Amino acid sequence: MNCQIKKLIILGQIFLFMSLNITAQIERVEPLNWWVGFKNNNLQLLVKGKNISNAIPSIIYDGIHIMSIEKGSSPNYLFLNLKIEKDTKPGKFDIVFHQDNNELKYKYELKGRKKNAEDFIGFNSSDAIYLITPDRFANGNEVNDQVSGLKDQTLNRQQDYFRHGGDIRGIINHLDYIDEMGFTAIWPTPLLTNDMSESSYHGYAITDFYQVDPRFGTLEAYVELAEKLKERGMKLIMDQVANHCGIEHWWMKDLPFDDWINQQENFLKKQIVLKSNHRRTVNQDLYASEIDKQLMADGWFVDAMPDLNQRNPFMATYIIQNSIWWIETLGLGGIRQDTYPYPDKDFMSDWAGAIMNEYPNFSIVGEEWSVNPLLVGYWQKGANNKDGYKSNLSSTMDFPMQHNIVAALNENEEWDTGLIKIYEGLANDFYYPSPNDIMIFPDNHDMSRIFTQLGEDITKTKMALATVLLLPRIPQIYYGTELLLSDIAKPGDHGLIRTDFPGGWLGDEVNGFTGEGLSDNQKEMQSFLKKALNYRKGSKAIHRGKTIHFAPDNGIYVLFRVLDDETVVMILNKNTEPVQLDLNRFKEMRLDQKPMKNIISDEPIIWNSPLEILEKGVVLLTTKM
Amino acid sequence: MNCQIKKLIILGQIFLFMSLNITAQIERVEPLNWWVGFKNNNLQLLVKGKNISNAIPSIIYDGIHIMSIEKGSSPNYLFLNLKIEKDTKPGKFDIVFHQDNNELKYKYELKGRKKNAEDFIGFNSSDAIYLITPDRFANGNEVNDQVSGLKDQTLNRQQDYFRHGGDIRGIINHLDYIDEMGFTAIWPTPLLTNDMSESSYHGYAITDFYQVDPRFGTLEAYVELAEKLKERGMKLIMDQVANHCGIEHWWMKDLPFDDWINQQENFLKKQIVLKSNHRRTVNQDLYASEIDKQLMADGWFVDAMPDLNQRNPFMATYIIQNSIWWIETLGLGGIRQDTYPYPDKDFMSDWAGAIMNEYPNFSIVGEEWSVNPLLVGYWQKGANNKDGYKSNLSSTMDFPMQHNIVAALNENEEWDTGLIKIYEGLANDFYYPSPNDIMIFPDNHDMSRIFTQLGEDITKTKMALATVLLLPRIPQIYYGTELLLSDIAKPGDHGLIRTDFPGGWLGDEVNGFTGEGLSDNQKEMQSFLKKALNYRKGSKAIHRGKTIHFAPDNGIYVLFRVLDDETVVMILNKNTEPVQLDLNRFKEMRLDQKPMKNIISDEPIIWNSPLEILEKGVVLLTTKM
Repeated sequence: MNCQIKKLIILGQIFLFMSLNITAQIERVEPLNWWVGFKNNNLQLLVKGKNISNAIPSIIYDGIHIMSIEKGSSPNYLFLNLKIEKDTKPGKFDIVFHQDNNELKYKYELKGRKKNAEDFIGFNSSDAIYLITPDRFANGNEVNDQVSGLKDQTLNRQQDYFRHGGDIRGIINHLDYIDEMGFTAIWPTPLLTNDMSESSYHGYAITDFYQVDPRFGTLEAYVELAEKLKERGMKLIMDQVANHCGIEHWWMKDLPFDDWINQQENFLKKQIVLKSNHRRTVNQDLYASEIDKQLMADGWFVDAMPDLNQRNPFMATYIIQNSIWWIETLGLGGIRQDTYPYPDKDFMSDWAGAIMNEYPNFSIVGEEWSVNPLLVGYWQKGANNKDGYKSNLSSTMDFPMQHNIVAALNENEEWDTGLIKIYEGLANDFYYPSPNDIMIFPDNHDMSRIFTQLGEDITKTKMALATVLLLPRIPQIYYGTELLLSDIAKPGDHGLIRTDFPGGWLGDEVNGFTGEGLSDNQKEMQSFLKKALNYRKGSKAIHRGKTIHFAPDNGIYVLFRVLDDETVVMILNKNTEPVQLDLNRFKEMRLDQKPMKNIISDEPIIWNSPLEILEKGVVLLTTKM
Repeated sequence: MNCQIKKLIILGQIFLFMSLNITAQIERVEPLNWWVGFKNNNLQLLVKGKNISNAIPSIIYDGIHIMSIEKGSSPNYLFLNLKIEKDTKPGKFDIVFHQDNNELKYKYELKGRKKNAEDFIGFNSSDAIYLITPDRFANGNEVNDQVSGLKDQTLNRQQDYFRHGGDIRGIINHLDYIDEMGFTAIWPTPLLTNDMSESSYHGYAITDFYQVDPRFGTLEAYVELAEKLKERGMKLIMDQVANHCGIEHWWMKDLPFDDWINQQENFLKKQIVLKSNHRRTVNQDLYASEIDKQLMADGWFVDAMPDLNQRNPFMATYIIQNSIWWIETLGLGGIRQDTYPYPDKDFMSDWAGAIMNEYPNFSIVGEEWSVNPLLVGYWQKGANNKDGYKSNLSSTMDFPMQHNIVAALNENEEWDTGLIKIYEGLANDFYYPSPNDIMIFPDNHDMSRIFTQLGEDITKTKMALATVLLLPRIPQIYYGTELLLSDIAKPGDHGLIRTDFPGGWLGDEVNGFTGEGLSDNQKEMQSFLKKALNYRKGSKAIHRGKTIHFAPDNGIYVLFRVLDDETVVMILNKNTEPVQLDLNRFKEMRLDQKPMKNIISDEPIIWNSPLEILEKGVVLLTTKM
């Protein structure tokens, strides 16, 4: 229904409402609060309460106006469209709901903004992001391991799909470690309430978009985490989900509109709800059938995750305001948006556009899990798509390059296999709107650990990590990679991939934070990554320098990053016997006789030909002494 | 050296030349003739002859002017820049070369053009192209099987890399067959002289760009082939090579400039000549090193094929004029350009641009052998390349889709293997400037026969051929595919791939042209292809209709081509047991209860659900009765 028409009907019904004598109640108003000073001066409040649609709201506050009120199909919702004038002062005020002679009051707050919009600096290629599954990283507060009243009471570290007790306090407790390792940002997977009956540990089945899961902590703890990161100059990235909610979401028992979720009718009639066909190419395909497109967009991700209908404008506004609420509340340094190609694509453009409009220096990375660069590039801001689709997404994920790195290291060196996969993969950058803003990773929480993907080969793992850190990209490393965490026992098993970080729990025999009980291999990998990350942290050549690479030859691939007088060299060598690398091939780099340093060992070397490389692995050199 | 400066020097030297008493001679003038009425009114003549650079040319003919003369580094070349005024009449005239008191005369002809520039219609998606290796198709003239004076005298049909005797006459003799099969165009691999000492049969080592190889016939025979095709409404596509020549090319013994070929100095000093690194991605790669780019562009393709330097403007003009000469002489319906990413890419843009400028409705297909759609799309006209590269190439080759078709048919059906490869490959069309103008093929002369690639499985081969014919593309089929020619004995062996067409030689026991001695399988495949091609020939829905396809499901992939009241359906079915296909999924196609016809068997069917499919294979249906 057209909103204008609906408003008229509502106004026409006011007198009717007033004559009814059903007492309205207020259960929740969302967003929980708002701020003055946004570019967009509209705010839409969702008010939920028994029969609240029968009430007439009023607000008396300088600069705040109720422009319209709108009802859904459930009598228990009322939507208030407010306008906030430019110079409105922060403060609290009552929203008064009138019904007959009754009044219901709700205290609402408009806060002042703590920092300028321009100062929300998103993650970029100068960062290195630590991806954390909070339930599995560290248990900082044992009191909240089990919380009564929540459906999932399965606390058992021996079970991969049960709760293990990790929490926000656990992350806060180990910020020293993360910082010293050389990471500059963290991306914890979702921390909001997943009051699901099972597998609630992963966080992607959100049942309240405004509440921190009590097993992870409180909103105050989340804010504390954000502030402690900020003190260190580190960034907090929030993992958000616009595509779906958990089946136990509070609104699933009383949906505000007939089209709040996709396939709502089937769901309500307890009929079969179609699953998404997961054929993500329909978003681009010139020839996709209507039925395939519909199934992709409107099918549910899985049975336990209802598909939100972002074409309902109230839902769209709800999601956008929710994102902004969290950015402002936590002072975020970025958002990671789950399953990017699944929601309505025009909405996703509006969503990202609304955020970037308020925070011009922010970053958002969307997950398009495809090894096809054409799709990865399609979604990035600035893509010159023939269908006219304008994305506002600053960053996408480099699944193609992740795949190439693994192939490059696992395959034998032939004309078209092995290291050439990295070389030719990188050549595809000519297509991307902004390659330097794309996120690269050796693995993530949804795929086998890189150590497992590389056959538990430490040398290959170092080569993969070095590549991820040296490419013109934003690197992301999954927690525990530095300790060679592995899912070899059940490769690809999600519960196992998300293994507990050793030392995150009281009484752990091995402790990755202190080094206690680590194997030599673990220590070596941790130290390697720490060295590389800490060099990267200060390296402008890696952050934004020129990239020059040379086609793999004789099992050796060489890549240079250059800015001003800093040149960083990465040599990936697949030869197991000692080789002499003829440096004359690289003379265009003008490094002849330059003193350099091995980034990992700190050993000095002089760049003169030939360079002897004794063993298979990665050599990282820099001119910065 | 700047040409203007060079001209001044030449003029200054005229008096010096005249005092020398070395008698000039004329061996050749190229192009062999020219035409009046081109948009570009410049013509550059290459004159070759002992000491010809000492002579001063003059022309007396209304509308023809010598604008300048230019010399190379060899005294045996002279380049004449002519201007042909707009209304110049066709005719013959003398080019007179003056030296001291001597005069040398050369009769040159400016012809009238036989047809309008707009009437050179290139191949397009309404065509089906028959690719022929002339030495291996049919021997129409045994007299020219061995030609004295040529270096390669190896005539032996038992040897895969020797000459077999096929020729232009052989093609002319079997135009009925090709036409009746349903092909509308032929692409013979190069027919120009390859006076090489060995492996001269394939034609890609051209030693004279203006001469038909005598073992293939004469220029008159080539013209006759062109005219006989034209009479049938069929098109002739010429295979041209701008990247290299054969090492026995006449100019290799006396190169006109110091930079006529790449690495000329090394070649002349008999030093090692570097081979191309064949890393074609350097053409797009933002990060490619200078040395890799140079090696790609200037390295020789193989030792026997010197790399032409198209950055020499005389070479550039020579190649462009040569292409136009053949288009005009043969009334071509298209050019296939070999190894497109190897020559200087700016030159290739100029070359294609010069041709398309003269022949606005012409077609050129360039060979970029890559399974990466990013590269295939980069080279097509209309690509919005970030580096600003403007290609003038109307068509590229769909190696990615060829690869996908084979994978789709050979792989088991899983979530991301099998028929999904065709479906997702086709989804990439969103990136191409003009997908309908891209050439698709089950195989070609440089790769294993499709029957071999598909494990000699006839059903799969039919599925592959049907797909090639139904996709929104320009299909190309290699000769003998219809007879299940195979290279299974030595898969991928070039000499074997180019097997003799049975019946092309007197005394062949099996004859594909008459059907004599064919196996049942061969007959079945020939008949299948003939049926499909002949339907395609008249099908506007396939030529330029809409494409709609449905994600593979249960081992079945369905693709529709639709224009007006013609709907063509292709069903690829991988199930070996009978299946019932629920047609309700396709209701958006509005075919309910429509009478249709099986294109191969002519059997009528009604489109009502379910459709029973008894066996693995392809079903082709049409609404056109």
